Amino acid sequence: MKIISNEIDLKTSKRLEIIDISSKVGEIVKFTGIKNGMINIFTRHSTSAIVINENETGLVKDFENLLKKIVPENSDYAHNVIDNNADSHLRSFLLGGSQSIPVIGGQMDLGTWQSIFFVELDGPRSRKVKITVIGQYLRY
Amino acid sequence: MKIISNEIDLKTSKRLEIIDISSKVGEIVKFTGIKNGMINIFTRHSTSAIVINENETGLVKDFENLLKKIVPENSDYAHNVIDNNADSHLRSFLLGGSQSIPVIGGQMDLGTWQSIFFVELDGPRSRKVKITVIGQYLRY
Amino acid sequence: MKIISNEIDLKTSKRLEIIDISSKVGEIVKFTGIKNGMINIFTRHSTSAIVINENETGLVKDFENLLKKIVPENSDYAHNVIDNNADSHLRSFLLGGSQSIPVIGGQMDLGTWQSIFFVELDGPRSRKVKITVIGQYLRY
Repeated sequence: MKIISNEIDLKTSKRLEIIDISSKVGEIVKFTGIKNGMINIFTRHSTSAIVINENETGLVKDFENLLKKIVPENSDYAHNVIDNNADSHLRSFLLGGSQSIPVIGGQMDLGTWQSIFFVELDGPRSRKVKITVIGQYLRY
Repeated sequence: MKIISNEIDLKTSKRLEIIDISSKVGEIVKFTGIKNGMINIFTRHSTSAIVINENETGLVKDFENLLKKIVPENSDYAHNVIDNNADSHLRSFLLGGSQSIPVIGGQMDLGTWQSIFFVELDGPRSRKVKITVIGQYLRY
Repeated sequence: MKIISNEIDLKTSKRLEIIDISSKVGEIVKFTGIKNGMINIFTRHSTSAIVINENETGLVKDFENLLKKIVPENSDYAHNVIDNNADSHLRSFLLGGSQSIPVIGGQMDLGTWQSIFFVELDGPRSRKVKITVIGQYLRY
């Protein structure tokens, strides 16, 4: 059994941006050599989120519109006295900042229509996503 | 330390259906023989979710009504040009597709009023839920 | 590799209360002596939640107001025939009851603006939060 840490650096380009990081995460899993176990993807930023869903252009637009509808940008938030990004924190609060996925046969066991998304909620910014892989080198 | 993978096959019967899978998951924990550690429950489908809450008939109805209120079915979603289930993806996007629970003394350490639910958001379908158990055979 | 379980006891004082438990969780990580790995924080109560976000007084107020707006207290919920706290369960259903965080160099690898919150949704009550730390004693 081994536990290995790694990270992904991202540069986002818009205030609200949903970025598919599946292939970057998949490369890290391959690099660790771990064959059977689990992976955790964690964002270090409280104005971002990690979600798993389908990467279809129209649907990604729908995700953005849902966030804007549930948590409107220009509302009367208390945090905006300090920093003008309460909506970003509130959207992160609802979505959550980490996901865990099984690793089987040296790969993440994602379904056919599942992608891992980094959700930028207060960009553009430089972001760090932490990857933790736990597992065994040999499949049993 | 050991990490063991397993899965649960489900056949759902309605479009929106909240199914208690606690006893199925509990049997897998027992079967692994792991006494102390953690379990991860992961759905491989981006129109479903895994949540933990109380299994009371009225409350399960309330969960369904909340999802219908926050993400209405017949709205003008971009994804519906491709596939008529944007609402299913959006509800999954909000709830999330995995949960992790401590394992103590060979059992999941759930509270008295906690059940594990598979949330079908685009049924009826055949579904696969992945279980990963990490831990030690002996309690220390 | 080792996996270690521990718990935090909390006494909450309000019906809706967002409590920063970062330092309590940090002490447990230090106590385990684990240097590299992962931690899971899990609430055993289906009328509470665990979230990670920024601890700023105005923002914490905004979180509370968002929950009240999305899931109003005095609505016509089916569960309220049994127990008058459907809104508490529904808010927990949306937020989720656990979070996982990397451990690096003997400490949780949280970002500068990230705190771990226990979200009391039906207080005041006595609550138990379970901590599971997985990892290695030596950094490699």
